[in-house]
Amino acid sequence: MASTPRWVEAINKALSHPNNKGKIIYQLATVDATNTPRVRSQVHRGFINPEGHADLPLLVTSTDSRAAKVSQAHGNQRVELCWWMEGSQDQFRITGFTHIYPSPTPGTSSPTPIPDDATALKLLVKQGFDWEAKRKEVFAMMPPDLRASWCAPYPPGTPINFEEQKGWPTSVPTEEEAKTDEDKKNFQAALHNFALMLVEPVEVDWAALGVQPNTRVLFRRQGEEWVEQNLIP
Amino acid sequence: MASTPRWVEAINKALSHPNNKGKIIYQLATVDATNTPRVRSQVHRGFINPEGHADLPLLVTSTDSRAAKVSQAHGNQRVELCWWMEGSQDQFRITGFTHIYPSPTPGTSSPTPIPDDATALKLLVKQGFDWEAKRKEVFAMMPPDLRASWCAPYPPGTPINFEEQKGWPTSVPTEEEAKTDEDKKNFQAALHNFALMLVEPVEVDWAALGVQPNTRVLFRRQGEEWVEQNLIP
Repeated sequence: MASTPRWVEAINKALSHPNNKGKIIYQLATVDATNTPRVRSQVHRGFINPEGHADLPLLVTSTDSRAAKVSQAHGNQRVELCWWMEGSQDQFRITGFTHIYPSPTPGTSSPTPIPDDATALKLLVKQGFDWEAKRKEVFAMMPPDLRASWCAPYPPGTPINFEEQKGWPTSVPTEEEAKTDEDKKNFQAALHNFALMLVEPVEVDWAALGVQPNTRVLFRRQGEEWVEQNLIP
Repeated sequence: MASTPRWVEAINKALSHPNNKGKIIYQLATVDATNTPRVRSQVHRGFINPEGHADLPLLVTSTDSRAAKVSQAHGNQRVELCWWMEGSQDQFRITGFTHIYPSPTPGTSSPTPIPDDATALKLLVKQGFDWEAKRKEVFAMMPPDLRASWCAPYPPGTPINFEEQKGWPTSVPTEEEAKTDEDKKNFQAALHNFALMLVEPVEVDWAALGVQPNTRVLFRRQGEEWVEQNLIP
């Protein structure tokens, strides 16, 4: 029977530690076109897995489809994220493939291809996973100020005059709450620029530095099995 | 007159925020030989700068000279670190060159070369900077359990049996405190494996997400000047 990998349980246990409250931010690294590493903070939006395959979890996060990391992901789908849970001194380094799913509306980039070794992503596609429903579901979880960030008229990272920025919305309501034409237009613009970002892990390196002696375990996916190896911390 | 860049002042100001107490851990990304990004938590050990060049700061961190990131740095000296200060919601992404300075004792890797564009590192070399004195100074700041981690008989990340690990020291005293032959041997072994890791920034991307509207400033080094550009967050 497919069961949840022990590293997911370790993450959930660490997250439930009272001193790790709200620790859902990790740093995700990509490589740019000049082979320079780039790394930024991302918010964890939960796990998903192909139906019947609890052993093949993917991490869900999000991005503006115009952000530099999207073109970086198109150039190289290998990513690693580092999730440091300060309260319990646990570090999870998760290496794998990323997949970007932007809005299907015209004028956005394409989804990234599904890498050959991305077993979980391939299964999702095979099972007819509804990416667009998931994209809208995750978008609906976003707070109003974050929704506003996706309706800026230019991509994140574009040079800007703060005076001009002052005229932009700082809060965008949900679809249900949107009453004025302006609200509705902003909601649609933000939803258009919002993209799902998935990470399919193939290796997870868990260092527990809050226990003595420190422990470190490498989980490596082989087929659909997770093989564990204790490492020197 | 060379003065401290505004981004260093912003980091110091963020660090002094009461909710950022102890936030001296950042995630540093490198690229490995297969062009896969790797990222892990590192502890900030302060800034240094070439004499008379407060405008050319470098960040000081450390590593085990046998760690995978050292060979990654030899393959590609471009790194980026992401310093997320949760308490004030400030993110500093610092891109630049790394330089590893291991022990000069036989049996360690060589220092990484000084990249052509690494103005600050080149100045340090020209001024005869005493790397070994700095390495010993930073090593002396380390707590006893961290010192112990550098005297493990095999490199970090080596497969290990926890039973075997139980026989290893969990605490190593300072040179002055080392009384027994065992203590002295462990101290020397740890010092032998301890390496300085420097980061010379060439770009700093500061996103202030704790203010409304959010701001983002890119600091780019041009010659010895830091040019600022406001960006869309």
